[in-house]
Amino acid sequence: MAEKTVYHYSVDPQFVDFTLNATVSSIGDFILNTAGTDAQHKGFGVDVLSKANRSWVLSRMAIEIDRRPSQYEEFDLRTWVNENSRVISTRNFELVDKSGNIFSRAVTQWCLIDFVKRVPVSLTEIESLCTPFLCDAPSPCALPRKISSVEADTVSEHKVVYSDIDFNCHMNTMRYITRMIDMLPIDLLRENKPLRLDVHFMHECRLGQTLKVGYAQRNNISMFEVTSEDGTVACRATIEWK
Amino acid sequence: MAEKTVYHYSVDPQFVDFTLNATVSSIGDFILNTAGTDAQHKGFGVDVLSKANRSWVLSRMAIEIDRRPSQYEEFDLRTWVNENSRVISTRNFELVDKSGNIFSRAVTQWCLIDFVKRVPVSLTEIESLCTPFLCDAPSPCALPRKISSVEADTVSEHKVVYSDIDFNCHMNTMRYITRMIDMLPIDLLRENKPLRLDVHFMHECRLGQTLKVGYAQRNNISMFEVTSEDGTVACRATIEWK
Repeated sequence: MAEKTVYHYSVDPQFVDFTLNATVSSIGDFILNTAGTDAQHKGFGVDVLSKANRSWVLSRMAIEIDRRPSQYEEFDLRTWVNENSRVISTRNFELVDKSGNIFSRAVTQWCLIDFVKRVPVSLTEIESLCTPFLCDAPSPCALPRKISSVEADTVSEHKVVYSDIDFNCHMNTMRYITRMIDMLPIDLLRENKPLRLDVHFMHECRLGQTLKVGYAQRNNISMFEVTSEDGTVACRATIEWK
Repeated sequence: MAEKTVYHYSVDPQFVDFTLNATVSSIGDFILNTAGTDAQHKGFGVDVLSKANRSWVLSRMAIEIDRRPSQYEEFDLRTWVNENSRVISTRNFELVDKSGNIFSRAVTQWCLIDFVKRVPVSLTEIESLCTPFLCDAPSPCALPRKISSVEADTVSEHKVVYSDIDFNCHMNTMRYITRMIDMLPIDLLRENKPLRLDVHFMHECRLGQTLKVGYAQRNNISMFEVTSEDGTVACRATIEWK
């Protein structure tokens, strides 16, 4: 069995908000980019898979943040895969500050897809690549939750532009979260409140599409739904404020 | 006289576009964040100046980019101040790849302001802090050019949101450039073309304002102007494609 793998980062000025703490989106970017880089280092990244017409697609994600780290703060990001079912690979993350405190935890669930047909394929295809890196450690927080449809109180529009897209010309994963958080009352972001973010990615959005971002606040839960022009749900998320 | 100071960076996945090369905005972010960090290290950063109710404000900027570096590429960023006139401090930058080739050069011009009254003050106030760090090396490219008003062919609207603002609750400097570049035909960005960007920052924009971003293409020059609701020009820029 493998061990957790550790990466080291610092909160450069690009990653902070007006409170000089890292944004939720930038913490998510650190996590997802580590997922990509780590898979590549271990031999099951998109660089290898794409040769066989396969790619990873993020399906669900949960991130718990006790505090957002401050500008120039350094931290370790530990990652490990602890389960590969037939259809889902579970990658886990812990963010650890200089005093050794875990200030953020995440669980991400990935599907393997045939990227020409855009359909999921069985993970047994790449079992021999992945199994040596399985780690016998539990996920650091509850698995991503199911998220029900949202009756939005506020809706904003967003056109998918150049700065939003990834190498597939799809909207970048964390851009959905950025657009959602931009709808929150600014006072919710002024304090560095603990939170849990759950996201379900359902359909990819492309350059030039106009998206609707719906937001509703229900007690301590912020609920979001992103839909494309034809009403297809692209993404749902909740933020629970603790 | 001081020497050039060197910082080291790598093009993490957060900084690339769909071509997997660093965006113009992220190169600008590296440059401006280095300006801030370097001033802080040398004792004339906003951390020190703010105690005397003073701050740096970026007035004009020129960035030449021969090629945008690729994802995971590492580079050195050399910076030096070579002139402090009564009203303008000139900070210079060279980005150098692993083979020693300079692939980007920049000149930025900063004013010192009284941040309560929002008026420029004389740099002679902080002469004793800055003079030891003056470096006897020429600017690496032509100084920022004057930019005339633009008759826009296309106009887009942008509301200033949470993810746009800095610690002053003003629109982040490079966000103007991101919004401008988002208006370009995608084909201009598909190739990694050499370019020169000139920017003149004229008025700050605040959270909640709705901005108009005007764009016109004149031969090999892309011209931009950002205005706020009352018609005040916030920022003008040109990109010359080489």
